[in-house]
Amino acid sequence: MSPFLLGILGGMGPLATVDLMQKIIQETPAQRDQEHAPVVAWNVPQIADRQQALAGLGPSPLPDLLYGLAQLNRAGASHILIACNTAHHWYAALAAASRAPLLHIADATMDSLRPVQGERIGLIATQGTLDAGWFQQRITALGGQTLAPLPEEMRAWFVPGCYAVKRGELRKGGELLSLLAASLTERGAGRLILACTEVPPALAAIDSPWQSIGIDPTRALARAAARLWRDHRDRAAMA
Amino acid sequence: MSPFLLGILGGMGPLATVDLMQKIIQETPAQRDQEHAPVVAWNVPQIADRQQALAGLGPSPLPDLLYGLAQLNRAGASHILIACNTAHHWYAALAAASRAPLLHIADATMDSLRPVQGERIGLIATQGTLDAGWFQQRITALGGQTLAPLPEEMRAWFVPGCYAVKRGELRKGGELLSLLAASLTERGAGRLILACTEVPPALAAIDSPWQSIGIDPTRALARAAARLWRDHRDRAAMA
Repeated sequence: MSPFLLGILGGMGPLATVDLMQKIIQETPAQRDQEHAPVVAWNVPQIADRQQALAGLGPSPLPDLLYGLAQLNRAGASHILIACNTAHHWYAALAAASRAPLLHIADATMDSLRPVQGERIGLIATQGTLDAGWFQQRITALGGQTLAPLPEEMRAWFVPGCYAVKRGELRKGGELLSLLAASLTERGAGRLILACTEVPPALAAIDSPWQSIGIDPTRALARAAARLWRDHRDRAAMA
Repeated sequence: MSPFLLGILGGMGPLATVDLMQKIIQETPAQRDQEHAPVVAWNVPQIADRQQALAGLGPSPLPDLLYGLAQLNRAGASHILIACNTAHHWYAALAAASRAPLLHIADATMDSLRPVQGERIGLIATQGTLDAGWFQQRITALGGQTLAPLPEEMRAWFVPGCYAVKRGELRKGGELLSLLAASLTERGAGRLILACTEVPPALAAIDSPWQSIGIDPTRALARAAARLWRDHRDRAAMA
């Protein structure tokens, strides 16, 4: 039996990593501590801002991401999760540098989203994630259509909402992000991918009604990780 | 400037580590991600049960604790926190094996508790923590008096309450632990040390009124760690 250890490349921001760890625990049926997934988390927020870097306004976070990834591999991680949607911009470079395979948050999200045939899905994400197109490509491949925020909606609601959460002002962030959710549904979105880790905690902080049609990629990634762990645990029990 | 990295020796249970990480974030004033403390967390719950080991009913967790500690030192931890009150039973052996200094949860708790002169303090903890006497010795040294649960209260309320939390039944755990809190206050405790990491989340889950007189050692440890980080950050800013 090869050893199993989930590595979390985090710190973007630090609360998003805590949120992912909590959701992995919630998604794991367990009667005692020892039945929960083993996790090592690199929650080091001293890393260049991803949104600024992709806007050409700051240095790349890649060197720091590679350093954290190397630490997780050295610690024996068998599978690695990136606790940040936007950081998946560097997914290919990270996957190439890692012994342990990396899960992709958009793949995990599609597992939670299916079926989407003929459906319009709103996408709440950073400009970097929107530009990368991972979610849109996967939704198109499944026969759905993506509704993205307009540039003025990004400026007025998404960006200030996201940075409010980073400052710890979850309620303020939740109110701004709710305005964006409302606008996307008015334009025809039946469900919303909350594809920035700041969004689900912010909507939860104000108990936003938009949570009911929101798909949380952090939750989806946690579910995928918990499934890997349960498969390993069950195989180990039979061995 | 020597590098700063908080290492968390966790997994006992996994939710207690998440709780400590969240409280470190809450106790750190920060305007952006990068101002939060860097953390590496070893949240591996495949470790022998601490309560069983101290009752002579199971193997010692020390080898697994030493392994996790070595991983945290290898990853560059400059300070180490143990996210479990009972595991402080092995504090001396762990401190002797670690390059990075280990904070002690009872020292951090006294900082939050002072002054205790002439006061009666209830102590909710595992039998292992009660037997070890760290909290009682420190309270006595400060001129206070400790009220510990009676053996029948441990059997009826503490032990089943604690294991309910480990199974994810937080509300059930909260109800059992509230009965113990009520009994300690009836016997004269003015404040309560919630010295098992399962207790504060359980009381929070039922919004227990006993929270208002509870001292949370996890919160105290988070505060001590956040203070170390702020001191480092401020010195770095001045350098």
